[in-house]
Amino acid sequence: MTRWPGTYADTGVFVCFEGGEGSGKSTQSGLLREWLQEQGYAVLLTFEPGDTIVGRELRRIVLSPSTGQLSDRTETLLYAADKAEHVDTVVVPALARGDVVITDRYVDSTLAYQGAGRSLLVEEVEHVARWATHDLRPHLTVVLDLDPRHGLSRFAGRDRIEGESVEFHERVRESFVAMAKSDPDHYLVLDARADVDEIAAQIQAAVAPLLTQAKQR
Amino acid sequence: MTRWPGTYADTGVFVCFEGGEGSGKSTQSGLLREWLQEQGYAVLLTFEPGDTIVGRELRRIVLSPSTGQLSDRTETLLYAADKAEHVDTVVVPALARGDVVITDRYVDSTLAYQGAGRSLLVEEVEHVARWATHDLRPHLTVVLDLDPRHGLSRFAGRDRIEGESVEFHERVRESFVAMAKSDPDHYLVLDARADVDEIAAQIQAAVAPLLTQAKQR
Repeated sequence: MTRWPGTYADTGVFVCFEGGEGSGKSTQSGLLREWLQEQGYAVLLTFEPGDTIVGRELRRIVLSPSTGQLSDRTETLLYAADKAEHVDTVVVPALARGDVVITDRYVDSTLAYQGAGRSLLVEEVEHVARWATHDLRPHLTVVLDLDPRHGLSRFAGRDRIEGESVEFHERVRESFVAMAKSDPDHYLVLDARADVDEIAAQIQAAVAPLLTQAKQR
Repeated sequence: MTRWPGTYADTGVFVCFEGGEGSGKSTQSGLLREWLQEQGYAVLLTFEPGDTIVGRELRRIVLSPSTGQLSDRTETLLYAADKAEHVDTVVVPALARGDVVITDRYVDSTLAYQGAGRSLLVEEVEHVARWATHDLRPHLTVVLDLDPRHGLSRFAGRDRIEGESVEFHERVRESFVAMAKSDPDHYLVLDARADVDEIAAQIQAAVAPLLTQAKQR
């Protein structure tokens, strides 16, 4: 079995938001960007899947109900292709400039949704996703933890992924929490039902010590 | 390093055509189909990349000049996704029915074009492609061998892949021949400049002993 020790950029700061649907990732990543920009940092706010030309096409293919049932391997490889393009053309160049890169979803989403949620071995899915991204890891992953029964009600039936059962989303949630527990130095797990400003303050406190690697303009 | 010993279907017959552009793969796969159908075999003639709904979308993305330069990893993963869908939804079901499946290109094309032709380690590309296809191998791969300077003249500049240099296509050719040499029981290398009927006869002679696994209707 190939080992994936993780590589961390030595310029710029890479922050990732993970969590189920409706957990507030967009709100909190927006607030973090605002806070960083007020201090003069260059911030790139991005997302997976889809924040490249190819990624948008792939996102459309994977999430469109008209595509029908994809093989589990096909879906895993499409998400990995999206990640490869995103890391090579968006994330790495911004980190090289010294930016703070904030991404809404990254490799952990693949592991949680395609690994824990589907029939494939998580080690196999991990191999593909780590290879796709050169095993580049976020300096900090913020998990906004929420009971899927709360989050899902906002989005019920919107697309193929969100049409899955509550049990599927419970396995996804458990998977995020387990990843965080196995690497506490690089994760922050927060209760997504807490007050928005309180959550934002906890995220700021965790990001602040990382900013020595970021460039102020 | 993961070993890939290869798996072979125990019903149906899986035949693959490989070779550069203009080497006559379409002509010869059509002639083989005709010959098999005359004897009452059910034949599925298919191709990679693209012979599924998702595959056609991916083929469009990868080959369209408007996509621009894709990262090498992205391209490899997109071809692998195409393969995963093709094997799971087209090739395996037909073999299970006892059909003869003839495919125009398969994993060797990925290894030759994305591995030997690009900057990636061929072992890494192979891992992704073998995983995508459950390591399912053709019972016979026919390599139609042709100096790229002959084949390319027919198609010059048609798409992104064929816009590559002659040296690129020479590395691809060498790669096909090397794969055939390393596993002579499962390969037949033929000079693509020979007479069409003579080539067809040599292919028929190599396929005939495999047909005990195929169903006659």
